[in-house]
Amino acid sequence: MLPSLHTLDLVGVGVFAVSGVLAAGRKRLDLVGVLVIAALTAIGGGTIRDVLLDRHPIFWIAEPTYLLVICVTAVATIAYVRFRPPPGSALLIADALGLALFSISGAQIAENAQLTPLIVVLMGTISGVAGGVLRDVLCAEIPLILRRDIYATAAVAGTALYLLAQAAGAPRPWAFVLGMVVVVILRMAAIVWGLRLPTLHLPVPDDG
Amino acid sequence: MLPSLHTLDLVGVGVFAVSGVLAAGRKRLDLVGVLVIAALTAIGGGTIRDVLLDRHPIFWIAEPTYLLVICVTAVATIAYVRFRPPPGSALLIADALGLALFSISGAQIAENAQLTPLIVVLMGTISGVAGGVLRDVLCAEIPLILRRDIYATAAVAGTALYLLAQAAGAPRPWAFVLGMVVVVILRMAAIVWGLRLPTLHLPVPDDG
Amino acid sequence: MLPSLHTLDLVGVGVFAVSGVLAAGRKRLDLVGVLVIAALTAIGGGTIRDVLLDRHPIFWIAEPTYLLVICVTAVATIAYVRFRPPPGSALLIADALGLALFSISGAQIAENAQLTPLIVVLMGTISGVAGGVLRDVLCAEIPLILRRDIYATAAVAGTALYLLAQAAGAPRPWAFVLGMVVVVILRMAAIVWGLRLPTLHLPVPDDG
Repeated sequence: MLPSLHTLDLVGVGVFAVSGVLAAGRKRLDLVGVLVIAALTAIGGGTIRDVLLDRHPIFWIAEPTYLLVICVTAVATIAYVRFRPPPGSALLIADALGLALFSISGAQIAENAQLTPLIVVLMGTISGVAGGVLRDVLCAEIPLILRRDIYATAAVAGTALYLLAQAAGAPRPWAFVLGMVVVVILRMAAIVWGLRLPTLHLPVPDDG
Repeated sequence: MLPSLHTLDLVGVGVFAVSGVLAAGRKRLDLVGVLVIAALTAIGGGTIRDVLLDRHPIFWIAEPTYLLVICVTAVATIAYVRFRPPPGSALLIADALGLALFSISGAQIAENAQLTPLIVVLMGTISGVAGGVLRDVLCAEIPLILRRDIYATAAVAGTALYLLAQAAGAPRPWAFVLGMVVVVILRMAAIVWGLRLPTLHLPVPDDG
Repeated sequence: MLPSLHTLDLVGVGVFAVSGVLAAGRKRLDLVGVLVIAALTAIGGGTIRDVLLDRHPIFWIAEPTYLLVICVTAVATIAYVRFRPPPGSALLIADALGLALFSISGAQIAENAQLTPLIVVLMGTISGVAGGVLRDVLCAEIPLILRRDIYATAAVAGTALYLLAQAAGAPRPWAFVLGMVVVVILRMAAIVWGLRLPTLHLPVPDDG
């Protein structure tokens, strides 16, 4: 029995809120500032997904539970972090889980709207990466998507495999789990073992 | 007799246009570049509010008066600034007024749409801060929201008090004025006396 | 016989994809990262136009051909660049063509929606510049719109002339071509001969 899309979005919102707190915590903001960054990180990807697909009311407007989850998760993270400093990779791990959850749930929502595979993959990728990109831009960090890690690649691979598994006859819950696991493993491999895809060495000169 | 939401949005658009001109004026843009930054600053928050709440046509598309106000205000600001250099705090003061106007009007629009208090506060905050964030990101400045000032906090406090005053029986116009005054006073206290909330010292290490 | 708006959007998407690849190519991303930046650059302006005008489904969701054009163009650009390094101005030239195409097609769409001239010009400008701004912000570059070149100015001038020519009795196809040529020539003049409008020297002090 697969958890519903709704449950997965709730968990995704929670882990992205954790990553928002950890990113904002480096910036010496006050409590409200940290909550705002956590909220924008957590609802950014899903909000852009809903706006692009014209799904109204937007998920967190339709159901305020999401905002409660963000507040509770953020305050709990703040309390925990002060008590026991997290390892340096905690932000990356929370971000990886959010990326996996929102990529595959975004893909599934696009799939339910009868969109074509290429758009399902792109919509999943946008849903997954947008919250983290907003967080990084607002925190004036180089977006994770731009570092040499496997990042957007993980979202694309996971959503593509989610579709391919179904095309090969796998039941949707299995495909769903497969897609998420692929995203998480690729990101973990990038974080823990430093796995990289070959970068493109394009000889593009700067404009003078 | 309270000014209408429409009037308040017009004033908010005007003061944000002033702040956009002052921010762009540091960047050595040409006239059109300054007008574009002023327009995006002025309509950014209200546009995101309308898109999130699915209110179409968006306020400045429904009524071009807004764009005329922006053009006139921006050109007048440019002329004035060349004649008499403004004090260094002029940008912050114009921004504070825009923050107050759009926070409370954004909150009221969400309230009129029967949304729950938590969403009313978040929507007010987003409406208030988004124009300034766009301005700062486009001008490659560190967003005001990230500095150690009371910023998002002012918007949250003002919109929350706006709701609390009504819950306590205050007529809506009084609550409206109270909310706006709170936002402006908190921002002014931050700008003039350097008032700060305690920042969170989260021992979050950088990811390696 | 004028090409349809659809054809022009396809060409605009293609040239913006080229500019996205060239910008991303300086950042040492992997193949998927380059494709994501190319796609966001290519569909950014038109997507914001469609969201603001409440045109759903958004153009690239309605017709996946756009995404195919982006993928094919991006891969071809990558292959070509590795074989023969482009001149330093290639990014600026591709960007200029995309700016011209999306500015005038965005203006025409706003015009078809019976909007007023000021909004037609602003909507054309937003459609033209938004994709490039997203590309520059994501690539952590100073947005082209902020450099001292004629940039937003070119979009404003082109869309304004497109409207003025029609008001003066020119048939729409002629006005369309005129507007596009003006945008391209102004950008080329800025790139090749370093043409600048006078910048505003506003004596705005930094806030302390």
